[in-house]
Amino acid sequence: MDAVAELISEAGQRLEPKAIITDPREIEPWAADWRGRVHGATRAIIAPSSTQEVAEFVRLAAEHRVPLVPQGGNTGMAAGATPPPDGSALLLSMRRMNRIRTISAENRVAIAEAGVVLATLHDAAHETGMRFPLTLGSRGSCTIGGLTSTNAGGTQVLKFGTMRSLVAGVEAVLPDGSIHDGLSGLKKDNRGYSLDQLLIGAEGTLGVITAVALRLVPDIAARAVAWAGVESPQRALDLLRFLEARTNAVEGFELVPEDSLRLVLKHIPGTRSPLAGEHRWHVLVEATTADAEHDIDAELQRLLAAALEQGIIGDAVLAANEGQAEAFWKIRDAISEAERAEGQTLAHDVSVAVADMPRFIVEAAEQVERAFPGVIASGFGHLGDGNIHFHVRAGAHAAADWYEREGAEITRFVDDLVVAAGGSISAEHGIGQLKLGEFARLGPPARVHALRAIKHALDPLGIMNPGKLVP
Amino acid sequence: MDAVAELISEAGQRLEPKAIITDPREIEPWAADWRGRVHGATRAIIAPSSTQEVAEFVRLAAEHRVPLVPQGGNTGMAAGATPPPDGSALLLSMRRMNRIRTISAENRVAIAEAGVVLATLHDAAHETGMRFPLTLGSRGSCTIGGLTSTNAGGTQVLKFGTMRSLVAGVEAVLPDGSIHDGLSGLKKDNRGYSLDQLLIGAEGTLGVITAVALRLVPDIAARAVAWAGVESPQRALDLLRFLEARTNAVEGFELVPEDSLRLVLKHIPGTRSPLAGEHRWHVLVEATTADAEHDIDAELQRLLAAALEQGIIGDAVLAANEGQAEAFWKIRDAISEAERAEGQTLAHDVSVAVADMPRFIVEAAEQVERAFPGVIASGFGHLGDGNIHFHVRAGAHAAADWYEREGAEITRFVDDLVVAAGGSISAEHGIGQLKLGEFARLGPPARVHALRAIKHALDPLGIMNPGKLVP
Repeated sequence: MDAVAELISEAGQRLEPKAIITDPREIEPWAADWRGRVHGATRAIIAPSSTQEVAEFVRLAAEHRVPLVPQGGNTGMAAGATPPPDGSALLLSMRRMNRIRTISAENRVAIAEAGVVLATLHDAAHETGMRFPLTLGSRGSCTIGGLTSTNAGGTQVLKFGTMRSLVAGVEAVLPDGSIHDGLSGLKKDNRGYSLDQLLIGAEGTLGVITAVALRLVPDIAARAVAWAGVESPQRALDLLRFLEARTNAVEGFELVPEDSLRLVLKHIPGTRSPLAGEHRWHVLVEATTADAEHDIDAELQRLLAAALEQGIIGDAVLAANEGQAEAFWKIRDAISEAERAEGQTLAHDVSVAVADMPRFIVEAAEQVERAFPGVIASGFGHLGDGNIHFHVRAGAHAAADWYEREGAEITRFVDDLVVAAGGSISAEHGIGQLKLGEFARLGPPARVHALRAIKHALDPLGIMNPGKLVP
Repeated sequence: MDAVAELISEAGQRLEPKAIITDPREIEPWAADWRGRVHGATRAIIAPSSTQEVAEFVRLAAEHRVPLVPQGGNTGMAAGATPPPDGSALLLSMRRMNRIRTISAENRVAIAEAGVVLATLHDAAHETGMRFPLTLGSRGSCTIGGLTSTNAGGTQVLKFGTMRSLVAGVEAVLPDGSIHDGLSGLKKDNRGYSLDQLLIGAEGTLGVITAVALRLVPDIAARAVAWAGVESPQRALDLLRFLEARTNAVEGFELVPEDSLRLVLKHIPGTRSPLAGEHRWHVLVEATTADAEHDIDAELQRLLAAALEQGIIGDAVLAANEGQAEAFWKIRDAISEAERAEGQTLAHDVSVAVADMPRFIVEAAEQVERAFPGVIASGFGHLGDGNIHFHVRAGAHAAADWYEREGAEITRFVDDLVVAAGGSISAEHGIGQLKLGEFARLGPPARVHALRAIKHALDPLGIMNPGKLVP
């Protein structure tokens, strides 16, 4: 029996039967990333139901030197939870650790196990009159452990930050099977390096997160959603600055190019343009209030009217009701889907300093379109975070294998522009497997060197998600 | 020539003369901690004026295997910046790196070099209409590098968090002389483990911080300061919850026991009791607003009146003017000084979960006074952060060598109580040298193990502030 088979067999003796899945049909959907780009293989999924079980299993894996790939909802964008194709690793699924251990409106904290689905936490917080403010498209599937391990972002980062800002503590099983308990609820603790912070965004390479303490904020009493037309990304940023100087209610601010809007209207049934006229760029604004007496619609309306008067925006419309608000958001959320319907698309999740982003969006698109004639490049998304999804679409005349043939070269070109602008080639999606080569190529070297040293120090056997994140 | 002499000589060839201080009279005040408890020795202070110079000097030190002790304002509470007494290490002073490189009200960020004094940053931010909200007693001497390296707290943590929440990026020279540049101003960057977060609170053991990007907030337009009498720490916390449910203006909330107030009135000239009657416990509340039209005095007055009516507090008084506000704060800030004037005092900077703190304060004091007859124990400070300074005073009949003879045993007793309550033996002061033994004794072991591994990985030669923080 080889090491993997021995580990599966020993796990079968120590853990309950439900924790061990070896049926290939049950394994199959979890062995590839959800976009179907990276296909791995594994002989078993191990799904413990308690931190103690995870610790025991990690100790066994260390004994047998069998690598583990932690997995939550398998919704990652960088194939960070996909096992290698040679079957040498086991999937460590956190899906059965799905309890919300405590939730307290008074302390404004929830402690959720790694396998809790984000939407479930949203609902639980809502029931206590509170709110967990991070959200993103995959909220019905993604899990707290995965969100923490990837330092996920989403559409409300502007006001509340990424997961790193919302995590109050982390419980994790380290690569030697010891348990790090950061759930004490201490607001101040200066006993050395923050292991919590080290585990956030570590993509499971330093241990597996088993539970997380999360900050809650008061629930929303009302939201106002508006759509505005602007003539450039700089005007969009001007609008954000204008609003931020006058209210702290803005929590969503998404940039949409005209081109992306057209594709959504073309491919996504039931969508229609929020504004009557044409605008080169668009902005989706969401403002919220926790105060039921605050007329947030009136406030946003008044501010947008003032911005219009000052010539910052060309036009704007406020969603008249929740249905219209959802329709505005649907346009934003459907951009990637519409692009895929149109043809081949290369996605890049990049950031530069916020103030530099308007120029970057425009200039990088021009440079890419000049260097690769026929392609269409544009950026959309979280302008206020300095983070856009910079997509390059194959033109109408592209070959069927455009993605395979030209993708890597275009990505290198885009990444070089990002690095030249002092930016990051991974703003919110992580490195996983897909960006490992570019991270190795572009460094920075001091950071890569330090990452390798830390990885080796905490996981000397290399059993925690090898081949991910650390070049 | 030994290695230290060789390093000093080589540094003399590479750095400008001002960067090398070897006169023992100039060295002496920096070789002991400011409270004069720990005396070290060094043959030179090296004070580079640029990041490049720091990097060059660290590379030289690594070549010669000479340990370095980074130092800012030398105001630390745990002797973390005090060199060992055998003269084997050199002091690396950051005081000449004292430029504010950039400050932008629009971006709400300042980039300050490590040697910038906190009060200087306060002033610079104020001039741009902004504010750097962290503050503490030593603001006229402590430096940005030291504050970051110790993850300092202070009196405004309730609203703005510790340094960890206020640092947007760190530039540091790592132990091999390479430069980590985290000053890019990216709001989102998921390229692996956060070295910035690892360096915050690392007390110079993983490298020396050379510059920090700091978040600014809008400047205060007005503040209201009040003093309230309550019957217990639980009532004090009730008051905080009451206020927080009704306003987000509260940013200071300090608990003061009657005993501490009496000592201040006795020993500190010019102080007088804010309230006429007697109360067992007191609270100093500070509320602020950035909105010049907001009558913050009226708001706090109204809320305290409501709290009085509900029986949460026994009495309260609002400072009538800035002079009275300063007088209230002076009482709080003078507690340690008054205690020292009264006699020998043992200080403990501890935290437990906020909700557990009222009971901890009362019960821990009772237990200590029972176990060590004659002593007086009490806790004061940042109740809303779950962080108090738990002081044990020698009684009137204590021997002159009480501190030396009984101090360590009492501290172990207190620390055991803290750990039993799930708390931290270092809430905001760090570990340094002074708490190293207790940290080693009380762990937690998984954390201590991880700290050692990380330290060894990033500083294999052990040249960055050895003998501090890592047990």
